[in-house]
Amino acid sequence: MAHLPTRSFQAYQVFAANTNVGKTILSTGLVRAAAALAVGADKKRTRAFYLKPVQTGYPVDCDARHPPPDSEVLQATVKAIRTFKQGLGQTVKGWALLETAGGVNSPIMSGELQSRFYRPLRLPTVLIGDSYLGGISTTLTSYESLHQYGYDIPALLLFDNKCRNHEFLERFLAKAENRSLIHVLPSPPEKLPDPKADADQLHEYYNKTEAYFRDVVQDLDRIHHQRMDRLKELADKARTSIWWPFTQHQTVKEVTVIDSAYGDIMTTYVEPKVDPTSPSGHHTDNAKKEEVEWRWREMFDGCASWWTQGLGHGSPALTQSAAYAAGRYGHVMFPECAHEPAIQLTETLLDTVGKNWASRVFFSDNGSTAIEVALKMALKASQDRYAHLGQHTGKIEVLGIDGGYHGDTIGAMNACSPNLYNAQVAWYKPHGHYFNPPTVVFKDSKFQVTIPAEMIDSKSGGPVIVSIDNLSSVFTKPSENDSRLQIYRNHIRETLTRLTQDEKRSFGALLMEPVLMGAGGMVWVDPAFQRCLVEEVRGFKGFGTEMSPSKNAHVPVQNNWKGLPVVFDEVFSGCWRLGRKSAADMLQVNPDIAAYAKLLTGGLITLATTLTTDSIFNNFLSETKTDALLHGHSYTAHPIGCAVANTSLQTYRQMEQHGDADQARRDWGAVSYGDMGVWSLWNQNVVNRISGMDIVEGVVPLGSVLAIQMREINGSSGYASLISQQVQKRLREKEHDDCETEVSIFGRPLGNVVYVIASQVSTREQLAKVENILLRTLEGKY
Amino acid sequence: MAHLPTRSFQAYQVFAANTNVGKTILSTGLVRAAAALAVGADKKRTRAFYLKPVQTGYPVDCDARHPPPDSEVLQATVKAIRTFKQGLGQTVKGWALLETAGGVNSPIMSGELQSRFYRPLRLPTVLIGDSYLGGISTTLTSYESLHQYGYDIPALLLFDNKCRNHEFLERFLAKAENRSLIHVLPSPPEKLPDPKADADQLHEYYNKTEAYFRDVVQDLDRIHHQRMDRLKELADKARTSIWWPFTQHQTVKEVTVIDSAYGDIMTTYVEPKVDPTSPSGHHTDNAKKEEVEWRWREMFDGCASWWTQGLGHGSPALTQSAAYAAGRYGHVMFPECAHEPAIQLTETLLDTVGKNWASRVFFSDNGSTAIEVALKMALKASQDRYAHLGQHTGKIEVLGIDGGYHGDTIGAMNACSPNLYNAQVAWYKPHGHYFNPPTVVFKDSKFQVTIPAEMIDSKSGGPVIVSIDNLSSVFTKPSENDSRLQIYRNHIRETLTRLTQDEKRSFGALLMEPVLMGAGGMVWVDPAFQRCLVEEVRGFKGFGTEMSPSKNAHVPVQNNWKGLPVVFDEVFSGCWRLGRKSAADMLQVNPDIAAYAKLLTGGLITLATTLTTDSIFNNFLSETKTDALLHGHSYTAHPIGCAVANTSLQTYRQMEQHGDADQARRDWGAVSYGDMGVWSLWNQNVVNRISGMDIVEGVVPLGSVLAIQMREINGSSGYASLISQQVQKRLREKEHDDCETEVSIFGRPLGNVVYVIASQVSTREQLAKVENILLRTLEGKY
Repeated sequence: MAHLPTRSFQAYQVFAANTNVGKTILSTGLVRAAAALAVGADKKRTRAFYLKPVQTGYPVDCDARHPPPDSEVLQATVKAIRTFKQGLGQTVKGWALLETAGGVNSPIMSGELQSRFYRPLRLPTVLIGDSYLGGISTTLTSYESLHQYGYDIPALLLFDNKCRNHEFLERFLAKAENRSLIHVLPSPPEKLPDPKADADQLHEYYNKTEAYFRDVVQDLDRIHHQRMDRLKELADKARTSIWWPFTQHQTVKEVTVIDSAYGDIMTTYVEPKVDPTSPSGHHTDNAKKEEVEWRWREMFDGCASWWTQGLGHGSPALTQSAAYAAGRYGHVMFPECAHEPAIQLTETLLDTVGKNWASRVFFSDNGSTAIEVALKMALKASQDRYAHLGQHTGKIEVLGIDGGYHGDTIGAMNACSPNLYNAQVAWYKPHGHYFNPPTVVFKDSKFQVTIPAEMIDSKSGGPVIVSIDNLSSVFTKPSENDSRLQIYRNHIRETLTRLTQDEKRSFGALLMEPVLMGAGGMVWVDPAFQRCLVEEVRGFKGFGTEMSPSKNAHVPVQNNWKGLPVVFDEVFSGCWRLGRKSAADMLQVNPDIAAYAKLLTGGLITLATTLTTDSIFNNFLSETKTDALLHGHSYTAHPIGCAVANTSLQTYRQMEQHGDADQARRDWGAVSYGDMGVWSLWNQNVVNRISGMDIVEGVVPLGSVLAIQMREINGSSGYASLISQQVQKRLREKEHDDCETEVSIFGRPLGNVVYVIASQVSTREQLAKVENILLRTLEGKY
Repeated sequence: MAHLPTRSFQAYQVFAANTNVGKTILSTGLVRAAAALAVGADKKRTRAFYLKPVQTGYPVDCDARHPPPDSEVLQATVKAIRTFKQGLGQTVKGWALLETAGGVNSPIMSGELQSRFYRPLRLPTVLIGDSYLGGISTTLTSYESLHQYGYDIPALLLFDNKCRNHEFLERFLAKAENRSLIHVLPSPPEKLPDPKADADQLHEYYNKTEAYFRDVVQDLDRIHHQRMDRLKELADKARTSIWWPFTQHQTVKEVTVIDSAYGDIMTTYVEPKVDPTSPSGHHTDNAKKEEVEWRWREMFDGCASWWTQGLGHGSPALTQSAAYAAGRYGHVMFPECAHEPAIQLTETLLDTVGKNWASRVFFSDNGSTAIEVALKMALKASQDRYAHLGQHTGKIEVLGIDGGYHGDTIGAMNACSPNLYNAQVAWYKPHGHYFNPPTVVFKDSKFQVTIPAEMIDSKSGGPVIVSIDNLSSVFTKPSENDSRLQIYRNHIRETLTRLTQDEKRSFGALLMEPVLMGAGGMVWVDPAFQRCLVEEVRGFKGFGTEMSPSKNAHVPVQNNWKGLPVVFDEVFSGCWRLGRKSAADMLQVNPDIAAYAKLLTGGLITLATTLTTDSIFNNFLSETKTDALLHGHSYTAHPIGCAVANTSLQTYRQMEQHGDADQARRDWGAVSYGDMGVWSLWNQNVVNRISGMDIVEGVVPLGSVLAIQMREINGSSGYASLISQQVQKRLREKEHDDCETEVSIFGRPLGNVVYVIASQVSTREQLAKVENILLRTLEGKY
């Protein structure tokens, strides 16, 4: 649903604070004034368009009991405005005014509130205030509701009558807005029973009030141009004063200005192409060229805004949870305190991702801090158990998987194997041993497990590939005499023995991303390997010598961690990303500690949690403060984050209970695996086709994630991979003329991987459009 | 403003969605039903109380043009309800219904909206919906506004008429709320002109509808008891499933349940005393005893909820900024993108705390991550300049101040000297040299600078104390031949020479908290020392050998950092905490890099920024991605945080421009120092008195911070300090019978320091109450 305004074309919607507040009279007056704006100049240079509520998108013969889908109605509304706009050509200035029905939150035929229905357009709103008795309240509540849905309100119109509501509102809103948005117009005449007489007196009213309406229109015009100027300015401001994360500023070509977002779609305003020969990296300065080249682009948020989006942008449910928590608490102190949102979220976490294993929730701010907390929990538990560990401060290591990623704070980095991210950091020092993992991809419609050569027999040469037919079967536990499992078991045992006995190294935790390593390149680790690794680590006796159990007296034996504490980093994989509530659930393995973030809050706000067992928690109990986990952040368990996270998790859970993924489950044959089935939200036929392409090494289709590993050409790979950059560029830039699929795909390069990640509420209809664009792009048809 | 409900006493406010929707008729019906609740049992056991809007707190002879202050009116309203409540005694069940005037957002006499005016009470709301044409919209906008102010709405009342608004609202809200809150009542009769006839027909209406109203009252009763049960449950839920930050769970005595907060005040519900002899740490289980002992406590948030509060809890301005950004964007991608809230905040930061020195803003999630980012910035800049640094990865150190604190992620910890916080962490390893700083306290009405003995002459014995009369003079630059300054200069030069030449250590940054070290115990470092340290570090030639400037070609020489990059951790001290916009501003020193968080967002939500210069930024520019600062968090520059931070900073700046602190400036004699003056928000007479007490070592009065260092008794100190714990306990527990000062002070122990921190919007009236309690407590009168 493209945004419509350009520099020469303006579109507004008119919302009213209440019924019978003069909406139609004022809308008409505005349209007349807009049309007359060029009076004294060339009348043909300005045209105004007025869409009355009754015309809004509904077919004339529409049956109110069976209205067409909202998306169609909105599309028809846009089409009407667009047709008018196209009729203007390049030089005629145009105005469109879309009058809505009833009040701000009145329902349309489908039962959706019109405030929400029109939100994808996010047209600037002319709010018709309530100038009558009690109208201050209805005007302000409408104003607050519109803001909460993300609308801008450039003008608020009121009549001048004996209530004089405008005087109070002017004072009140001037404080809130730092600008005046109120226009006071003369009161209209009382409606006359005779239509002719009524029309006449209205005509007279408009003649007398023409100057008032012109003022409003001119003010709107001024604000419109400020807005368009500002949109263009944002890109340069960003270039000169922002320091973006993970970005080489010198090679940035295009800055994407995001004006708003709704559902899966980001509405962006895109600057003209950069002249790559310019040393400053700035675009060529040419005002006229800019005018032509700047353009709106509706983009599917294919990287889910750094993998955060669960319930889509601008979700009313999340906004309202956030607003309520902000109004009730702001932020409040957490240590030794309790508040409803934190306790509710704790209950929900322990009943979903933490079910059957976790009993404690620690709050922090992002995935990286959640992992630092997890490490502090695990390493102290190990130190308390294994006498020698306490003697070698700083030398305790983790077991991990090569290519894993756990965040950018230095503690989390030090738990990772050396990679491109951490090579430049002065204080980076890896504390660990990292297993080179067997991996899975979908290629030529088969799932292929690649077992690294080093696991098999050093003389035999290359890696071994095992083929599996069905997605769910990849997650099925192999029998104990399965040769693949035996290879894993032997390799892990030999490695652990070598590390501890031959190399005399000390370990305090097993840390890994279960199933899918995201930032490392969407690497799908063989579930059988990770399951086996946990079992072997839990069973391995060589990690140390247990101290007397006195330090650990509170821990019930059956609940006690074994071998090493197992830490799952579910920041990327958790909270239904891969279809099921957690990757641990897909592995059928319970960790001792696990970190959740990103989808936790549905994509609105930063919050992270580290869950664990009492077996870990009890190590920190004593009469001494300094034995406690002395870690905390100022906004720990901030009520907004907790409330939003609780709403998100409850919604995901309800969607699961309601079988929202049933179609995908059937599509991927997951139904017959019952509760252990695994599926992808992406259509199997499409994924099959992609998996068969020559330029594709393999595909990872898991839940909302579709990752496509591109074949390397001329040895380019990793950050330097050219082919994936070209594909991303085409996906992003393509402008589709067809109104139905007018969307491009916003992606970010990840080495040689092209990926799209849906939210949990993406519709099949929306995903089908994305699949279509993806297929055609990969097939070189775009 | 104490909360009123108990298990046997319920209080509600009645808000209406619009005028003329039957508010009085319904309120009356509810009161009748509540009073009749015990019909069939003992009538005397239930009483109901009805406060009409006209009676609400205003004196009968009140002049509408000069209404009494809002706080008085609210106090009078509470008093009326409380008087009724007290009349009930221990056994009679009571109901109070407070009817409000007009709609939800109608203004009261003072011009405040009644939604905001009544918010400190946060009584559960009975919302009278609008059952007439257009009423769906006005009902829903009112509902959304009330939620945004943090109200709970246990019941929404509608009439059954031909509009049938209730049918739509029932469906719509059931989805949003997961419960039914709508009650449908028979339509009332049309009003009759004759008062007697009207009264008669209303009487008949009530008789016919009694059962409907009783249903509402019984439902409210049920929800009320659920609420009271839940409040009590929260404490135990927290004990058994939360892992609090920085908390030794085994020694937690009392869990503070925070029901809501407003301005400086947290409304808490406090569990009965813990039996310290019980090994489980649980309170004695005795249902009846609990019933008596659980109680509301209104607490001044004396630790500013971990030093976050700038604009107070539940600030409508911050809530609305957050809600708008959530509605417009949710969260959106940041690298290579721009959105209005991030750019606006960047502009504001560079025009306030970053003015005249910073040109780039990096976003992260909390103070600790902002410092990790700062370290990565500084260390790479040093590595790029000094050839040898790159050769010793992991060995580059920072210069810092002993006792400093920079956050709990391991990178930030490794920049700190060893302390209680980091001793237990396996991967902690300090990378630095830490100066033992000269400090300042206010004792016996004088400012005393203590210069450590090691700086003077090892033979002369103890430290030297210098006395200064005026707070602002502490910050005045001493002349170059001032003996104190000469001592500092010599000590710093000798130390730097020893470290680099004798000990051959390599340094990459100077990192410190300017002026006040918060978590380290509210240690006020002599500004002259910090200023001198920056000068000496910038002038010291011994840090390394500069490489050829080719790597740094973009950096204009005059803007280039000197010696080492100077990093200020302004997470605690920045954003007007100490009166002025930054502690750097008070030192009259510009850093090369600085971190801001906490007050940045006014106390609502977590966000942090690291500001720096192009001189630092340019070191990361090249054609190669891996030369960039490869650090980022998923929710980087989340629009909610940016919007809220921008509103906060703009508000602080406006308050400064409006001279909100003028009274405090005069009180502390800061006016004559012009723009360089320093003051405290705490009354000088009170601080003088405290500074003269025998039990007080010294006081730190800076801006909103009042820290009192208690004299150690029997060698107890640090975490074990007993006297400060006792004072905190008395401040927190004291229940004040006097209605006017019915508040206690919520504090957290910080070694031997007792502190209270105000927000930027605390009123003098509120602070005076806190000062009074503080004085009396310290004088042993409580």
